[in-house]
Amino acid sequence: MPEWPEIKKFQSEFRTFVAEREWDQFHTPKNLAMALAGEGGELMEHFQWLTPEQSVDLPGETLTEVAQEIADIQIYLATLADRLGVEIGPAVARKMKLNAEKYPAERVRGSARKYTDYE
Amino acid sequence: MPEWPEIKKFQSEFRTFVAEREWDQFHTPKNLAMALAGEGGELMEHFQWLTPEQSVDLPGETLTEVAQEIADIQIYLATLADRLGVEIGPAVARKMKLNAEKYPAERVRGSARKYTDYE
Amino acid sequence: MPEWPEIKKFQSEFRTFVAEREWDQFHTPKNLAMALAGEGGELMEHFQWLTPEQSVDLPGETLTEVAQEIADIQIYLATLADRLGVEIGPAVARKMKLNAEKYPAERVRGSARKYTDYE
Amino acid sequence: MPEWPEIKKFQSEFRTFVAEREWDQFHTPKNLAMALAGEGGELMEHFQWLTPEQSVDLPGETLTEVAQEIADIQIYLATLADRLGVEIGPAVARKMKLNAEKYPAERVRGSARKYTDYE
Repeated sequence: MPEWPEIKKFQSEFRTFVAEREWDQFHTPKNLAMALAGEGGELMEHFQWLTPEQSVDLPGETLTEVAQEIADIQIYLATLADRLGVEIGPAVARKMKLNAEKYPAERVRGSARKYTDYE
Repeated sequence: MPEWPEIKKFQSEFRTFVAEREWDQFHTPKNLAMALAGEGGELMEHFQWLTPEQSVDLPGETLTEVAQEIADIQIYLATLADRLGVEIGPAVARKMKLNAEKYPAERVRGSARKYTDYE
Repeated sequence: MPEWPEIKKFQSEFRTFVAEREWDQFHTPKNLAMALAGEGGELMEHFQWLTPEQSVDLPGETLTEVAQEIADIQIYLATLADRLGVEIGPAVARKMKLNAEKYPAERVRGSARKYTDYE
Repeated sequence: MPEWPEIKKFQSEFRTFVAEREWDQFHTPKNLAMALAGEGGELMEHFQWLTPEQSVDLPGETLTEVAQEIADIQIYLATLADRLGVEIGPAVARKMKLNAEKYPAERVRGSARKYTDYE
């Protein structure tokens, strides 16, 4: 299975964006993993005081900010994968195959107990 | 700009995967944001004791685990976006436009100082 | 206001523990901050699929694991503070003073709206 | 081993602070774990583009901000422990005993390999 074309296209464009700014020096995999985790934390902070119900129906302004965090995470994820030579599409396909084997629908259906072990 | 087709395809497949297991009840945006941030933390832990140089050249076993974490993050990111009605491709395009305006190449080139403010 | 005596005592003991293992080389503030954030993610993952109600009343085994994560976070927090020369007790006192000024009880009482801005 | 007295004192004061603002409703263990992880991410972001060497010697302004994040983490950690009935001092003592057994000094000295497994 080939890499998702849009990911490849973005990675190529972002490589140019970074090179033009001479930012490669900051983009070690270690630093990119930190930046990605940091953005994950920022995304999460938008939800931390909401009830589960409120989190389904965000105010427009919050949704705009959340969409920006989602974009930041996608950008860092694609950049880290690019630096490490990991192809995201094929990695997702492999992981979904593992998930299907590990969690057969008929066995885990609706079970929070099983779900708790789903990492 | 339309959503990346592979993201849409994955979201549709994953919706079925989740429905077959009756896991929708766990997939509030709040919980998905937590799961995403948690996977970001797991990814980062692979890098925490490495030097910047070591992080560029991971042992094969570590790289396999890191690729799985990257897949997990992509899976949760696409699922959260799906639940919120956010389109990832267009959100990335909008964010890159903002980044280009905020960080003109000629002004920020190679500057850690400016880069520090790049969030 | 002086540092909390138990923090100082722990920091001193842990300095010996680390020196005996020649682990100082791994304990840059950057790496310790990553380790701390990683432990925060691990702690959080115990709660991610629980309802708010379930999170109040953890099964005994989960509580034991959560207590270990709390200890890990306290250990890294004290170690990072030690490396940076930050005194935790006085820093908490200063932050609580700021919080009291920023969130006067009569103005913010029970308000999720205000609370959302509480970072 | 008893709880650290300063932690107990802080927890008691903070219980009053929270009650005066009617914020208990937001302070489920689930939400507190999210807030703690979020603060861990914010702390880490101060370090993400720094070299290991730069992280040892922070500019004064950054150090002030980092000290505030350390305080925030300590505040949420103590509050979460209080809600769960976990005593931090004894939990740290138990964890250090486990660490001493798991990582005998003579066996792991200076070994990044062993250290990598130190979680």
